[in-house]
Amino acid sequence: MSKFAVSGVFSAAATPLNADLSVDHARFANHCRRLLDAGCHSVALLGTTGEANSFSVAERKEILDRVIAAGIDPDALMPGTGVAAIPETVDLTRHALSAGVRKVVMLPPFYYKGVSDDGLFAAYARTLDAIADDRLRVVLYHIPQVSGIPLSVDLVSRLVTAYPGIVVGVKESRGDFANMQALIKACPNLAVFPGADPLMLPLLKEGGAGCITATSNLIADSLRTVFDGYADPSAVAQVEAAQARIDAWRTLSNSYAQIPTIKAMIGIENGETGWERLRPPLMPLSPSEIADLAPRIAALP
Amino acid sequence: MSKFAVSGVFSAAATPLNADLSVDHARFANHCRRLLDAGCHSVALLGTTGEANSFSVAERKEILDRVIAAGIDPDALMPGTGVAAIPETVDLTRHALSAGVRKVVMLPPFYYKGVSDDGLFAAYARTLDAIADDRLRVVLYHIPQVSGIPLSVDLVSRLVTAYPGIVVGVKESRGDFANMQALIKACPNLAVFPGADPLMLPLLKEGGAGCITATSNLIADSLRTVFDGYADPSAVAQVEAAQARIDAWRTLSNSYAQIPTIKAMIGIENGETGWERLRPPLMPLSPSEIADLAPRIAALP
Repeated sequence: MSKFAVSGVFSAAATPLNADLSVDHARFANHCRRLLDAGCHSVALLGTTGEANSFSVAERKEILDRVIAAGIDPDALMPGTGVAAIPETVDLTRHALSAGVRKVVMLPPFYYKGVSDDGLFAAYARTLDAIADDRLRVVLYHIPQVSGIPLSVDLVSRLVTAYPGIVVGVKESRGDFANMQALIKACPNLAVFPGADPLMLPLLKEGGAGCITATSNLIADSLRTVFDGYADPSAVAQVEAAQARIDAWRTLSNSYAQIPTIKAMIGIENGETGWERLRPPLMPLSPSEIADLAPRIAALP
Repeated sequence: MSKFAVSGVFSAAATPLNADLSVDHARFANHCRRLLDAGCHSVALLGTTGEANSFSVAERKEILDRVIAAGIDPDALMPGTGVAAIPETVDLTRHALSAGVRKVVMLPPFYYKGVSDDGLFAAYARTLDAIADDRLRVVLYHIPQVSGIPLSVDLVSRLVTAYPGIVVGVKESRGDFANMQALIKACPNLAVFPGADPLMLPLLKEGGAGCITATSNLIADSLRTVFDGYADPSAVAQVEAAQARIDAWRTLSNSYAQIPTIKAMIGIENGETGWERLRPPLMPLSPSEIADLAPRIAALP
């Protein structure tokens, strides 16, 4: 058994849209099922890759409700619930709990920049005290290059100490390996998840808990191979091959802006049109960029 | 008559909170009335100083409804309605219009950073096309040090051209005077508002439209004196004295983090306790910091 309350391969699922940019719920449920079938332990829906903050609170609730109604086990879902306004973070998290979901990824309030650790601690404390539900398992979300809000090791430590059994993980999407190591050292039972697929393997060797990543929309099977086999001497060749595949797909997914590229690649890989759509301010790849991706995907391991 | 669709002294009103950090609606309506009595043309409620993005959509609607119900003329209100999710920006703006409000300040979607001008144009276009109401007057909101999203002169020009009579102003809260000049030059009928009180006077002389500022919570009368008299040769002495007062109050309001300091100063100046409260992640000044402000306020012109 893992010492972590949450661990494994989590896919930061992209959200398919209809032509009017409403959510294509049926396709999304199908995509979640595909990710779980491919080996993901859970789907981390409604994150940055999932364009969560481009949806209203009502839309976010409907996305979660519709996925569960389509038959996806709530235990296999870890939605993002952190928004700029604490009352709405509370509302979204309570809604997830009421739907049977226990694990969430929680951004700090992200409008004001340069706020103090005391202010961020107060924000998380106010949120968790308002939710007041022992079933909850929270993964903090460190993605300062997007949110504008870094979560310091000291802040994370304070929250882990103040909310034992509730604040159980952190998603480190800055891609700073030294920071991931520092988090593990400061909080030995904290589940630290890199947001970059290639970093799962090295961090597992240092006490990491898995990954919450975007390329897993495409290569969850390889991530699962690495996760299951990284410590198994008999699996070295398989793990190396899987890691090479992860690196190659990740590199291609960063050819253009990452979220549009991931969405375009999902569409190409699964033969489904429409995946290239995004809500503004994100913009889809151009038709020529998408056309350029197809042969490059075909050439990947 | 002004060539601008919106012009004047607008106060970026702070929002008073009860001990449980709910909104003190009665005190807020009283504060709005005080600002208008002091000479503000309009109250720019629910902006950055007003902690708008720390309130839920429902709370924001209630704040506006309660102020109007307390007797404040909707024509004297210019709420912020821009949030991270376009459907909620549409919802908040429609709600304001339905309440008789015509002028709004609109942030771009602010979660994703480094987005293109095309993406920001598409975001505003999608928002305005969904609202589709000719009564609306929009002031774009450039405050990249908080929102993380700069609005380029080219983007503003494109929006003014695409939505004539609708996109009528820009709030330049970066404090970049050359950028304000460039906006005026690019869009001669665009109402450009500095977000810093001392810059209203120099920008009025270059074709500015007034101001939308935080220190106006305290010294709206002086801003009005400058606005009314800046081009009047017989008012030079009064304008100079008012500008000196604006500069001094603004300097003190930047002694500590600006929003907590402004709120503390409102409380001290009006003899009202509780104004020092803020919603996390913003934090109130310490009691000693507040105590330090009182004699310094008393010494101001």
